[in-house]
Amino acid sequence: MAGADRNQRITFQRTPKGLPVPEDFGADTTPIPVPGPGQFLSRTVYLSLDPYYRNVMKGSQIYAERLSPGDVMVGETVARIVESRHGEFRAGEFVRVRNGWQEYALSTGQGVRKLDPAVAPISTALGVLGMPGLTGYTGLVYLGEPKPGETVVVSAATGPVGSTAGQVARLVGARAVGIAGSDEKCEYAVRELGFAACVNYRNGDLAAQLKEACPTGIDVYFDNVGGDTLKAVLKNLALHARIVLCGMVEAYSMDTPPPGPFLGPVVGARATMRGLVVYDHMHRMDEMVRVVGNWIRSGQFRYREDITEGLAGAPEAFCRLMRGGNFGKTLVRVSDEHL
Amino acid sequence: MAGADRNQRITFQRTPKGLPVPEDFGADTTPIPVPGPGQFLSRTVYLSLDPYYRNVMKGSQIYAERLSPGDVMVGETVARIVESRHGEFRAGEFVRVRNGWQEYALSTGQGVRKLDPAVAPISTALGVLGMPGLTGYTGLVYLGEPKPGETVVVSAATGPVGSTAGQVARLVGARAVGIAGSDEKCEYAVRELGFAACVNYRNGDLAAQLKEACPTGIDVYFDNVGGDTLKAVLKNLALHARIVLCGMVEAYSMDTPPPGPFLGPVVGARATMRGLVVYDHMHRMDEMVRVVGNWIRSGQFRYREDITEGLAGAPEAFCRLMRGGNFGKTLVRVSDEHL
Repeated sequence: MAGADRNQRITFQRTPKGLPVPEDFGADTTPIPVPGPGQFLSRTVYLSLDPYYRNVMKGSQIYAERLSPGDVMVGETVARIVESRHGEFRAGEFVRVRNGWQEYALSTGQGVRKLDPAVAPISTALGVLGMPGLTGYTGLVYLGEPKPGETVVVSAATGPVGSTAGQVARLVGARAVGIAGSDEKCEYAVRELGFAACVNYRNGDLAAQLKEACPTGIDVYFDNVGGDTLKAVLKNLALHARIVLCGMVEAYSMDTPPPGPFLGPVVGARATMRGLVVYDHMHRMDEMVRVVGNWIRSGQFRYREDITEGLAGAPEAFCRLMRGGNFGKTLVRVSDEHL
Repeated sequence: MAGADRNQRITFQRTPKGLPVPEDFGADTTPIPVPGPGQFLSRTVYLSLDPYYRNVMKGSQIYAERLSPGDVMVGETVARIVESRHGEFRAGEFVRVRNGWQEYALSTGQGVRKLDPAVAPISTALGVLGMPGLTGYTGLVYLGEPKPGETVVVSAATGPVGSTAGQVARLVGARAVGIAGSDEKCEYAVRELGFAACVNYRNGDLAAQLKEACPTGIDVYFDNVGGDTLKAVLKNLALHARIVLCGMVEAYSMDTPPPGPFLGPVVGARATMRGLVVYDHMHRMDEMVRVVGNWIRSGQFRYREDITEGLAGAPEAFCRLMRGGNFGKTLVRVSDEHL
């Protein structure tokens, strides 16, 4: 039997067919590794669950990682250093590191970011102050280029990327309009996140709802989902609209990519569509953490987390995320940060 | 019977179903109008046939004109002034004017451009030195932004827009690759227009043909057609590619817009898609006529015309254009310019 002195892991089992199911994952234990010279061992506190893992699971060429059955699932984590033979890291320090879906892992320090728990809760390094925050911030600011008074529409508005994009839009003087999948999420977007309006795409004709919520048209669309949502937005573009293509969550679970929208409205509106890959913007992480961190500390910027307890629950939590059943940044608490 | 002293007209009869047929048009004669104060009367020499007329015939909101059955068809023309009561225009002068599909029309001079037959053949004012040339030139230069050494792909490569975009690409140091619908057109594109390569989309797997013709990927795509051609291009994008959406000829003949391409590759390539409407670039007409006109006079830039004799043949010539059966800028000679 695996004891507490073993490393718990969730592995890649097979490429899902359509939406992922828990059986697409495996679980095992391995010995806790021992750091060599220039390495440190850390214990995962939070595992981040993100839709792009579904794309990694089908071998999309966008990502560096290729998974074979039995490999530990890749993923972003926040961890506490247990033992270090690395000159720049010490036991007890918190770091953001790609440990993947496992309790313990070694690192050479490459790509690792130290975290100060006094500045912000360490979990935010996986959400609004981490890659999702960077995605929402840089995509909106540098690709969307919203001007004060413009209307900015954001899909998946209550997720970590969308809630960042929407709140940044508001904080630079634009009018943020959200799209989400439940009345509860829409109410949260307006009341807590400060969106001017939020429409529930499950409530019928989305194009008509957007027309009502955006009477002067959509100047910027931050697209987290693609598919029919994008089609509805294209019917409501303002002249010279900017569309930031960020995620196509709907397509991640399909083997054959679905057709996209008719692009005639893009010509009619003289619109610009640009593809965002957050890795191109890593050099803006410090800027984002400073800007958004200040907004968080001053109470102008909110975030929400959806935390599952225990690594064993990660596969089911991920499947729920891909069905749109999450509400806020989806995390798994793998161990207690105070241990 | 209508005599030579009547104005011959081709009228809009009905919105075509699918590809247009000659029966979608009517014909009649009206009295030759008489200019009032501030007006001139001109006789059409060349009528320009352009795919966008098909969109006007279905009432697309992009255009200012709305046609009712019996209205004269709208269109760009080159004409010679017969009689003038306008201070700035004199009988005998050649002008580019929107006379539509008819032999005689009045004008107040608004939007009219005078032509000097000594500078270039007057027919070029409807092609490479007119709106199609402006479309190809400004779309490529200002939206495509090609850099020397980059690969620029142009669809409908032997038409007036595509042949302009491709030759401008070559003349600014990029490598132009054409897409056309016959081996004869491809041979012309390479031999006469100086494209580095040209692929025939009727010769099977277009994506594979493009991969071979563009081994380092496509940096700029000037899209004149949309549809499956755009899909094949998206499979071959270079990083940071720019896609200029100019025309969607395929869709002009459809009542319900077809789906577009899956946009995942746009994200993967961090590409930019922009919609071009040439009316936004009218202020660049003088620049284009100067730059392209110089290239024409120095023999570096070629063009080809596909001329139908007589206004009565215009409907059939337009239908042939929409089936892709034209070869070069499609014109109708309505009267002799030396008359």
